[in-house]
Amino acid sequence: MTPQAPTPAYRRLSVEERRVQLLDAALALFAHRPPEEVSLDDVAEQAGVSRPLVYRYFPGGKQQLYEAALSSAADELRLCFDEPRKGPLLARLSRALDRYLTFVDEHDTGFSALLRGGSVVETSQTSGIVDGVRRAAADHIMRHLDVAEPGPRLRMTVRMWITAVEAASLIWLDEDKQPPFDELRDWLVEQFLAVLTVTARRDPQSAALVETLAADL
Amino acid sequence: MTPQAPTPAYRRLSVEERRVQLLDAALALFAHRPPEEVSLDDVAEQAGVSRPLVYRYFPGGKQQLYEAALSSAADELRLCFDEPRKGPLLARLSRALDRYLTFVDEHDTGFSALLRGGSVVETSQTSGIVDGVRRAAADHIMRHLDVAEPGPRLRMTVRMWITAVEAASLIWLDEDKQPPFDELRDWLVEQFLAVLTVTARRDPQSAALVETLAADL
Repeated sequence: MTPQAPTPAYRRLSVEERRVQLLDAALALFAHRPPEEVSLDDVAEQAGVSRPLVYRYFPGGKQQLYEAALSSAADELRLCFDEPRKGPLLARLSRALDRYLTFVDEHDTGFSALLRGGSVVETSQTSGIVDGVRRAAADHIMRHLDVAEPGPRLRMTVRMWITAVEAASLIWLDEDKQPPFDELRDWLVEQFLAVLTVTARRDPQSAALVETLAADL
Repeated sequence: MTPQAPTPAYRRLSVEERRVQLLDAALALFAHRPPEEVSLDDVAEQAGVSRPLVYRYFPGGKQQLYEAALSSAADELRLCFDEPRKGPLLARLSRALDRYLTFVDEHDTGFSALLRGGSVVETSQTSGIVDGVRRAAADHIMRHLDVAEPGPRLRMTVRMWITAVEAASLIWLDEDKQPPFDELRDWLVEQFLAVLTVTARRDPQSAALVETLAADL
């Protein structure tokens, strides 16, 4: 084996590396505890750094830390829907949902607190971040469907389905993750096709998509 | 014509009547303006009463007024789903949705501000009120479906659909109330049947309901 350069235990991190390290620690804590129960001191302990350091990075306190952690979680969630544009469409949707539900599974309490709102650290800023993820998911779906100008009925169908998926995730966490992960994922994909089929009765654009999707099955 | 007893212009209202009068005035204002733009003074003007009187009824100020108006709106919303248990099930659902969408139509800005959250007067208290309406809607649906013990799959399906209806209402308001009212109502009823049909593939309880619903068609 080639000897590796020794890594000093207290190597000086760049500002960005340090920020990422602290956000990772915060996300790990937010994953299983509601935001109001996570203090900057907890983050310091989790990251194994001094308290003043955490305060230096987040002078705005808990609220600033929470918003930063939320943005970082939102970036991760957005990545879930970033699927290569090849292969059958419903299989792509299934893979994206698989990643999304994995995130939900791994960040249960934090995910729930974030989406339910009503938390003490909930603000129009945090609602905006959540809305951004929803919009990104809708945009990804439209791109995969290869629709440049979705009409109001198709847009509404996709946005309703995204909201329903979100509701399903929260209910799933409430119900001790029942039904099982794979069943939930497949069920949500089938619901997408079902609601799009209903829309297709009154919307030619959706009807064309249903034909494309059915050809894949 | 029989002469009527003269109504004094400033007849003394009972405490409860006065409260209802003030809440009606507040709801009328919240209907088309976000809560943070409605002051107690506006309510006094709308109700045609003195400012001190409004302050006497809502000593907790704007927040108290908003929560009281919200509870009153929630009661109205709950009534939308209170449908006699006779006739075909989907026709009952259609009538309930008709009343719900009429409420959305008449209280557009207020409804939107309420459900979107992120308002300055949004609290866990107000989120709780909104959740109560959702739960009441789900309970009504279960009663109509004549299901005493809904399993997790049926429960999740109904709750997802309720969330999707809510999302549709908000999108509908954003999209200048397109598609037309009647089309939106019928579309939502068809979606209910469609998602329940998907659930029926893996849930005998839902399968039995789909058979009952289909027999009505």
